[in-house]
Amino acid sequence: MNIKTYLSEQRAVVESALERFMLPAEGPFKPHIEAMRYSLFAGGKRVRPILCLAAGSAIDDSRQTYENLMPVSCALECIHTYSLIHDDLPAMDDDELRRGKPTNHVLYGEAGAILAGDGLLTFAFQLLSDDTTATLEPTSRLRIMSLIATAAGSLGMVGGQSLDIASENTEFPFETLKTIHRSKTGALITCSVQAGAVAAGANQEQFSRLTEYGDNVGLAFQIVDDLLNATATTEQLGKAAGSDVVRGKATYPGYFGIEETRRLAQEAVDRAIASLSSFDAKAEPLRAIAEYIYTRSN
Amino acid sequence: MNIKTYLSEQRAVVESALERFMLPAEGPFKPHIEAMRYSLFAGGKRVRPILCLAAGSAIDDSRQTYENLMPVSCALECIHTYSLIHDDLPAMDDDELRRGKPTNHVLYGEAGAILAGDGLLTFAFQLLSDDTTATLEPTSRLRIMSLIATAAGSLGMVGGQSLDIASENTEFPFETLKTIHRSKTGALITCSVQAGAVAAGANQEQFSRLTEYGDNVGLAFQIVDDLLNATATTEQLGKAAGSDVVRGKATYPGYFGIEETRRLAQEAVDRAIASLSSFDAKAEPLRAIAEYIYTRSN
Repeated sequence: MNIKTYLSEQRAVVESALERFMLPAEGPFKPHIEAMRYSLFAGGKRVRPILCLAAGSAIDDSRQTYENLMPVSCALECIHTYSLIHDDLPAMDDDELRRGKPTNHVLYGEAGAILAGDGLLTFAFQLLSDDTTATLEPTSRLRIMSLIATAAGSLGMVGGQSLDIASENTEFPFETLKTIHRSKTGALITCSVQAGAVAAGANQEQFSRLTEYGDNVGLAFQIVDDLLNATATTEQLGKAAGSDVVRGKATYPGYFGIEETRRLAQEAVDRAIASLSSFDAKAEPLRAIAEYIYTRSN
Repeated sequence: MNIKTYLSEQRAVVESALERFMLPAEGPFKPHIEAMRYSLFAGGKRVRPILCLAAGSAIDDSRQTYENLMPVSCALECIHTYSLIHDDLPAMDDDELRRGKPTNHVLYGEAGAILAGDGLLTFAFQLLSDDTTATLEPTSRLRIMSLIATAAGSLGMVGGQSLDIASENTEFPFETLKTIHRSKTGALITCSVQAGAVAAGANQEQFSRLTEYGDNVGLAFQIVDDLLNATATTEQLGKAAGSDVVRGKATYPGYFGIEETRRLAQEAVDRAIASLSSFDAKAEPLRAIAEYIYTRSN
């Protein structure tokens, strides 16, 4: 399959679903909703929703399942976008550029950006709980929400970000870096795959295999992110390159050097693909996504 | 009934449930969890959880229903606490005192406070979606989550806060003040009553009456809050008195003067109590709570 065509098609589907679900910028809270929409439609790669769609479709590629996956995918993207808005704040990473555009607080002020993030996080759960948007059966929806809340919360993404910030300019063992990666980035990526699996009616064995896939893809993704921050230019990234070093952040290249880090990324990708061995051709997109993550690093 | 005894007993029950549900401060994210716990256990009045418990018990005062209401009540308090942490931030209201104690960011820094809020908001939905904590049937839980996400989100509390901030030091019609109050404070209070009603199996008529009760209690609560900000001392409030005037915030006393504002609060309380006319003695706590809100203003 042509992974670039696939990703661009899926991205278009996700964009259009986000447009369909997201609040329109109107009424008394118009400026606030505009701030949310600005970051939500600022051209993300839509990695998490696409992983969710691909994981669900690897189990059941029917049209109905694909439709059921859509609000779940969009909720994941809302949560990812909120996390970027808050991470970019002056009190956190203080980034002024994201995806080649001014970050949310540069345009809407700090208060506006904090509230845009709060609004997107809350909206994600509205999407999942609202009968008019989510057509899955109630127990599946609750299980998906529990997975997402756990992955995005204080023992997952939010906890990871707090540990990341607290660890800047300190020396710590590699185990701590793994904890930061796994919680800050890995948890929501694994959960995107898991949420797709649950929405598509995965059995226990399929759920376990896809969890393994998600864990390894999440790891590869984070390692490659570290690599790109160290080797690419700001123009290529659409955000400040080399910022990890400037901020004294621990990274894979910092521990292992560029070449060994590349090898570790390739190993994670190999493990991700191996975990899909019992899946048929419907899992081809998941395999191709894993490969593609690695090629970004070169 | 003795409302003070009732409130203090219910508060103790809520405190103990929060303690039971809330993450323990341990593991790699300990400092972050400590920041969440600091504000969650900083001595709030627990108005929203108590309203939720009282509304549910007005319909069904069985032990099982009371137990079912507990995680819902705690989720509401987590959301209320997160909103206070974010509202107090330097980029928002810049308050250093809350309930007589330093605000979250004073102790944990701005990044720590933003993440503590994010963590509490996410945890609320974890509480509601997790099978081990919420024992209600799935469709009720989803309906409660949808009500809460809508009330707490961009067309409710978060939208109201954004409008409140944007309206500081500007002149605007009384209609806008009503929109701010209804969204910023009223929505979550109404929703606390509604969530209790749904958890207790309210029929459509009961749900409507309790919604009317919640709307009026929320209005009375906000009017009295405005009154207290204008007339009480910092020591009495546990937060900065007179801050509304300093910040150029529109308030009920600003539009109507103190006496007329008192009358409007009393009217809202009367309407709240009238909406309960078809309820029996199980609704006595709801009636007493409404009366009590007014007595706070004197």
